[in-house]
Amino acid sequence: MSQQQPIQQFLDDLASSASTPGGGGAAALSGAMGAALISMVCNLTIGKKKYAEVEPQMKELLEQTEQLRTQLTALIADDVAVFNSVMDAYRLPKATDEEKSARTEAIQEASKQATVVPLQAAQACAKVIELAKPVAEMGNSNVISDVGAAVTAAQSGLKTSALNMLINLGTITDEAFVTEHRGKLDQIIEASEPLAQEVYEFVKGKF
Amino acid sequence: MSQQQPIQQFLDDLASSASTPGGGGAAALSGAMGAALISMVCNLTIGKKKYAEVEPQMKELLEQTEQLRTQLTALIADDVAVFNSVMDAYRLPKATDEEKSARTEAIQEASKQATVVPLQAAQACAKVIELAKPVAEMGNSNVISDVGAAVTAAQSGLKTSALNMLINLGTITDEAFVTEHRGKLDQIIEASEPLAQEVYEFVKGKF
Repeated sequence: MSQQQPIQQFLDDLASSASTPGGGGAAALSGAMGAALISMVCNLTIGKKKYAEVEPQMKELLEQTEQLRTQLTALIADDVAVFNSVMDAYRLPKATDEEKSARTEAIQEASKQATVVPLQAAQACAKVIELAKPVAEMGNSNVISDVGAAVTAAQSGLKTSALNMLINLGTITDEAFVTEHRGKLDQIIEASEPLAQEVYEFVKGKF
Repeated sequence: MSQQQPIQQFLDDLASSASTPGGGGAAALSGAMGAALISMVCNLTIGKKKYAEVEPQMKELLEQTEQLRTQLTALIADDVAVFNSVMDAYRLPKATDEEKSARTEAIQEASKQATVVPLQAAQACAKVIELAKPVAEMGNSNVISDVGAAVTAAQSGLKTSALNMLINLGTITDEAFVTEHRGKLDQIIEASEPLAQEVYEFVKGKF
């Protein structure tokens, strides 16, 4: 899986019985589309006379959405990598007690990594939703629907990342790790869900 | 824009100040990812001893999700085409009364097409959500999170298609057309939104 893969190939691989790419890759791509759509609205606001007053803010917002887009695009491949690490750990030998214990440790380590990657995706999607609000309020009103499109994409990325975190947390025995990461996830969802809804309704109310 | 375009290029074009691809393309791709993820779960259920009893249903569901995936993938390019038609119509000459009237008619015709394409996307996304429910209930429970991922992607596609329909309906003067298409959209949203929520919560409840 690479960012140079054609869209059709990505969709074919997603639909196939191969275990990767899966929901995590789709989540990261959704988030990246969300960030890209906010960038588009910034790009269509910057340089326009009518929006000269907000130009400094729009440039700053664009810088942030482009960083998020880069991060989320990279997470498409990261998701495949951590999934494969978990699978590899489960395939380790388990004939002796020593092997068993090494295998268990490897599974735990890989599962933690497979929790951290969707957490990063969830955090980046939440940030896209956060940036959508000022862009909806200040950006070029001719393309405000694209801000609405962006929040729905970021919301999908966030909700899917949440599921992927929960699956992996379910296999982790380190209670402190589970509590910490579950807490972070709950906090993100609590803040982002109503904000995403608010921005979407704000945009919809314009038509 | 073609389905053979690399993911990175699609995201770069989406983020750029070029007017296409935009939210409509992102919506169709989200829907196609949703369909692909349901197909994946079907593919990972078919042929498994444990799920032999539901195999005929899963095969039928797979056929339907694959049709929807093909349709939604094609709609990525269709969205660009209808957007360009609207832009072309606005660029028509308007020096004489005859030209003015021909231009108005062309704008109206193109706007109707630009309403029909997101309606098709919305209908296909709604169908993905509908098919997600039996797949969540009967499919391979090891990959049930991917059904959750699928409904969030289809929901994003549906909500963005709704915005794109509303924009275009706002410029159409044919009241019968507006009433008919607005009614179809409302009906889809009313049925799909609670169902998507229900399937997502069902999946989340498994972890």
